[in-house]
Amino acid sequence: MKSRRVLGFDADDTLWHNENIFEQVHERYRALLARHHDAATVDRTLFATEMRNLELYGYGVKGFTLSAIETAIALTDGRIGAEEIRTLINLGRDMLSHPVELLEGVAETLAMLAPSHRLLLITKGDLRDQQRKLVKSGLGAHFEQVEILSEKDEAAYASVLRRHQVAPQDFLMVGNSLKSDILPVLALGASGAHIPYPLTWGHERTEELPDAPGRFFELGHIRELPALLGR
Amino acid sequence: MKSRRVLGFDADDTLWHNENIFEQVHERYRALLARHHDAATVDRTLFATEMRNLELYGYGVKGFTLSAIETAIALTDGRIGAEEIRTLINLGRDMLSHPVELLEGVAETLAMLAPSHRLLLITKGDLRDQQRKLVKSGLGAHFEQVEILSEKDEAAYASVLRRHQVAPQDFLMVGNSLKSDILPVLALGASGAHIPYPLTWGHERTEELPDAPGRFFELGHIRELPALLGR
Repeated sequence: MKSRRVLGFDADDTLWHNENIFEQVHERYRALLARHHDAATVDRTLFATEMRNLELYGYGVKGFTLSAIETAIALTDGRIGAEEIRTLINLGRDMLSHPVELLEGVAETLAMLAPSHRLLLITKGDLRDQQRKLVKSGLGAHFEQVEILSEKDEAAYASVLRRHQVAPQDFLMVGNSLKSDILPVLALGASGAHIPYPLTWGHERTEELPDAPGRFFELGHIRELPALLGR
Repeated sequence: MKSRRVLGFDADDTLWHNENIFEQVHERYRALLARHHDAATVDRTLFATEMRNLELYGYGVKGFTLSAIETAIALTDGRIGAEEIRTLINLGRDMLSHPVELLEGVAETLAMLAPSHRLLLITKGDLRDQQRKLVKSGLGAHFEQVEILSEKDEAAYASVLRRHQVAPQDFLMVGNSLKSDILPVLALGASGAHIPYPLTWGHERTEELPDAPGRFFELGHIRELPALLGR
């Protein structure tokens, strides 16, 4: 593993908590619509709206908020009040101004790896929101470069590696999403270390299992990374 | 001017029309709220909401749509109907799926400059929206790199020039906004060519006039650029 000198890190749910914030918002959303529909219907309809809007809105809090408003109007046949829509806008704002809570072990592990590796932050979502979270995280100085992408697929990773003149065999991507962080880099011939987060957004779930002996690693914790790289 | 081998281009209202689409949406917005408030009040309140939200939302259509919904609720004391809010969401969607209309002369001028210059697209706004517009524009192949920034200030331009190893004296930025395209690059010692667009969003207006003899150029049309560079 000593050849992997360039490390890519996903941000949300890899370096800091994110899905738990969305989960709290979903709970408040279900409560807001509880007198109209059961929780399962609310969840299913909101997810369908998000998927339908994904191509147009992309990832991130602002698109989520717009989808939540659209879904609330549809699920109440337009009977939702302006006050409740204002609540949804405020929920979005709360998410954007939420403190950044690092996952345990992240700060120490990055500090340990940064002197001997080139670290890239590779994430998707709202441009300004991700930049703000990085600043709040205090981790910015460890990263040589920050790449905020509109999609994390094979083409996007290929373009990042090309831009930074990194050969796939020198690159290891670390992240919680098999679909966005691991499978596309394995397809390019690079390596991936998967560190699951307790919660996974439906869109990031995949049935596909990585098949790349010697290039795919399942870790329980980010603290296991230095040992893996030192092998 | 032959030393300026690296050209930065703003996108909205420099390469393709944008502010005219916002202007059409503003007109529909005023009409929607006309029975509550006069046009000037609507414009002023929406602009104030946008400015208040700018730090959190950043630039782009999704943040604009959220600000428009928030303003409509405030201006009607919550009496706005869900159907009208749905109309606002659809206005946002229309903007995101609007065809890209190039400004006259853009395609030919870029094709003329690309063989002898490094062209960078440097813009701000929603990540996915700007990428989609570039694809729709058919201009993508001319650009060596695309930089979508959350803010176009001195620090952001400095970081772009550093990343692409461009010395300020080799760089000329072309754009319609003195505030976002010209003043920050002049402050870095680079050059700027200002090509005004008939409409300017309030936030991009500035009283400050560039004072950089030999580095600031006011053009009437993008077609004047090759002659300026050939001098």
